[in-house]
Amino acid sequence: MSILVVGSVAFDTIATPSGQVKDILGGAATYFSLAASYFTEVRMVAVVGKDFMPEHEAVLKKRGIDTRGIERTQGKTFRWGGQYLDNLNEAKTDFTELNVFEKFQPRIPKEYSDTQFLFLANIQPTLQSAVRLEMDDVRLTGCDTMNFWIQGAPKELAETLKLVNILLINDTETKMLAGEKNLPRAARKVLSMGPSALVVKHGEYGATIFFREGAFGIGAHPFRAPALPIEEVKDPTGAGDSFAGGFMGYIASQGEINREVLKRALFYGGVMGSFAVERFGTERLQNLTRGEIDARFQIFRELTHLE
Amino acid sequence: MSILVVGSVAFDTIATPSGQVKDILGGAATYFSLAASYFTEVRMVAVVGKDFMPEHEAVLKKRGIDTRGIERTQGKTFRWGGQYLDNLNEAKTDFTELNVFEKFQPRIPKEYSDTQFLFLANIQPTLQSAVRLEMDDVRLTGCDTMNFWIQGAPKELAETLKLVNILLINDTETKMLAGEKNLPRAARKVLSMGPSALVVKHGEYGATIFFREGAFGIGAHPFRAPALPIEEVKDPTGAGDSFAGGFMGYIASQGEINREVLKRALFYGGVMGSFAVERFGTERLQNLTRGEIDARFQIFRELTHLE
Repeated sequence: MSILVVGSVAFDTIATPSGQVKDILGGAATYFSLAASYFTEVRMVAVVGKDFMPEHEAVLKKRGIDTRGIERTQGKTFRWGGQYLDNLNEAKTDFTELNVFEKFQPRIPKEYSDTQFLFLANIQPTLQSAVRLEMDDVRLTGCDTMNFWIQGAPKELAETLKLVNILLINDTETKMLAGEKNLPRAARKVLSMGPSALVVKHGEYGATIFFREGAFGIGAHPFRAPALPIEEVKDPTGAGDSFAGGFMGYIASQGEINREVLKRALFYGGVMGSFAVERFGTERLQNLTRGEIDARFQIFRELTHLE
Repeated sequence: MSILVVGSVAFDTIATPSGQVKDILGGAATYFSLAASYFTEVRMVAVVGKDFMPEHEAVLKKRGIDTRGIERTQGKTFRWGGQYLDNLNEAKTDFTELNVFEKFQPRIPKEYSDTQFLFLANIQPTLQSAVRLEMDDVRLTGCDTMNFWIQGAPKELAETLKLVNILLINDTETKMLAGEKNLPRAARKVLSMGPSALVVKHGEYGATIFFREGAFGIGAHPFRAPALPIEEVKDPTGAGDSFAGGFMGYIASQGEINREVLKRALFYGGVMGSFAVERFGTERLQNLTRGEIDARFQIFRELTHLE
C-alpha cells in the first residue's frame, strides 16, 4: 500500500573524513522516499525552489516516486551545510538556509487522498498536526522530530504526539523529550504522551522499539534490531531518514500490522540506514536491488541469531 | 571445567543517583568469580590485607569459589572510590588506594595447575603475561585491560596480547588500542596483535564478538548480543567483570569451543552484567539461581529473535 511522506528536500554541502561534496540532493523526504521505494509506492509532499532541476526530479522518478506533491515556488531550495569530524555520529552544522522551506505549507494533492500510510518527517510540529488531521483516513502515521522542536515547541509537539502511532527518534531525543535519563523509563513516558510505539535509533548499535501496553494487541516487550558494524562510513547524512524509509516502507508493504511485521520492519530500517552511509548523499540508495537489501537483512538477522 | 581468574579484590566506596555505599566488597576478580560461579568451578588468585574478614571470604565460599589462591599480607586491601553522576556509563574516580595490590605478585597454588581456562582481569600487563606463561597448559585464555595500560604500557600489553585467545574490552578501549575510530577496522587491527577473538562491550547496547580469519575454525563474521534495556540501574560498578564472568564461565562449562558456544557465551555475559547493575556492589550476584539466569537469557534472545 502507498505511503506519503511530508518533509524537506534540500541541497546539502557535506564534509566528512572521506571527502566533501557541495549542493547535492538531500533532505529528509528525499532519503525517506528513496529508501521506502524498494518496498512500496511512495508519494512526496515537499517544497523546492527554481534551482530544483529535472535531473534532481529524475532521481526520484527513476525509483517510481510520485512527485506530484512537490511544490515549486520562487526562490531557492533549502540548503544545509555540515561536517562530521571527530565523531561520525554527530554533525556540526556550518549553515542552514531555509529559503523556500521557511514558508512551507504542505498541500496534499487530491490524488493522494487515498493514502493509507503517512510519515511526518522532521518539520514544525504544527505543520505535522495539520497534515495528520487532513489525512484522517490513514491507517498508520509515523513521525520524526528533533531537539530543536522538543525544546522550542514543546506544546505544539505534544499535540502532534497525540495524533501519531509511531514516533522514531534517537536516544538523546528520547531522553530530552521525557526529561528522564534512563532509556526504558524515558520510553514509557514518551509512550504516555500518545504514540502506540516508540522506535529509538541507536546509530551503529541498531534500534529498539518500545510498545505501549496493549498497543497493536501485541504486548509490551521491547524488541531490538542490531545494526551491522560498517567499515566504510562515508557520510552519515540521512541515515535516520533512510532508517525511517525502510521501517515505514516495509510496514506499508505488508497487509497487516503485527508484532512480527514491526520486528522485521525494524531490521529493514537498519538495513536501509546502513546502505545510506556507504556513499555520499543518496548515491547508494539510488541504485540498490531488493536482492541486495534482503541479503543484508539476512546478515543482520544472523548477527544476533542463536540456533 | 574449572576456570582461574587473576585480578583484584577491593573495597569500594560508591555514589550513584540511587544512593551510596562505603567499603563494600568489590574488585574485578570478585565480580568475575561470582558471575562465573553459576556456570562452572571457579578458582581465584588475588591479594588482600588484614581487613579482609571471614565474612568477606564467606561471600565467595558460599558460591563454591576456591579461595586458596587469595594471598593475605600485611597492610590494607585495595580501595577504590568513585561516583556515577550524570552518566551511569562512566565513573568519576574519587580515590584509588592500591595498598597491598601495589606489590601484587600472583602466585598460582599447586592445586590450580590443572586449570583449563584462565581469565586475566585488568592488572599490569607484565603480570598478566607471567601468569599466562606459568599456566602454559590452559586451553583458552581471556584477558581484560584498560586505557591506563593501553597508554602507559603499550609494549608490555603488546606482549600480553600475543599470549591470549580472547580480549574483552569496551568500544573506547578498542579504538584507543588500535588508534582507529571505525569499530570494525579497529577490531581487525586488535586481532592482528594476537587474540583470536575480540569481545567489544557496548554497555547498554550489548556486545559484539569479532573473530580473526580462521580463528576457532569458525569464520570471521562478527556476532552481536543485545543487552536488555534495564529500568533500574543502581550501580554500574563491576558490570564489565560480571560480563566477563558470565562469558568465560559459560565457555568453561561447555565441552568444546565453537561458534554457537561463543555466541551463547556472549548472551550469558550480557545477562550477568545486567544482573550486576541492579543492586549495589555484588549483592545481586550473590543470590541468583540458574533458573533466573536462563529466564533472562530467553528474554535477551527474544529481544532480537525473528520468527
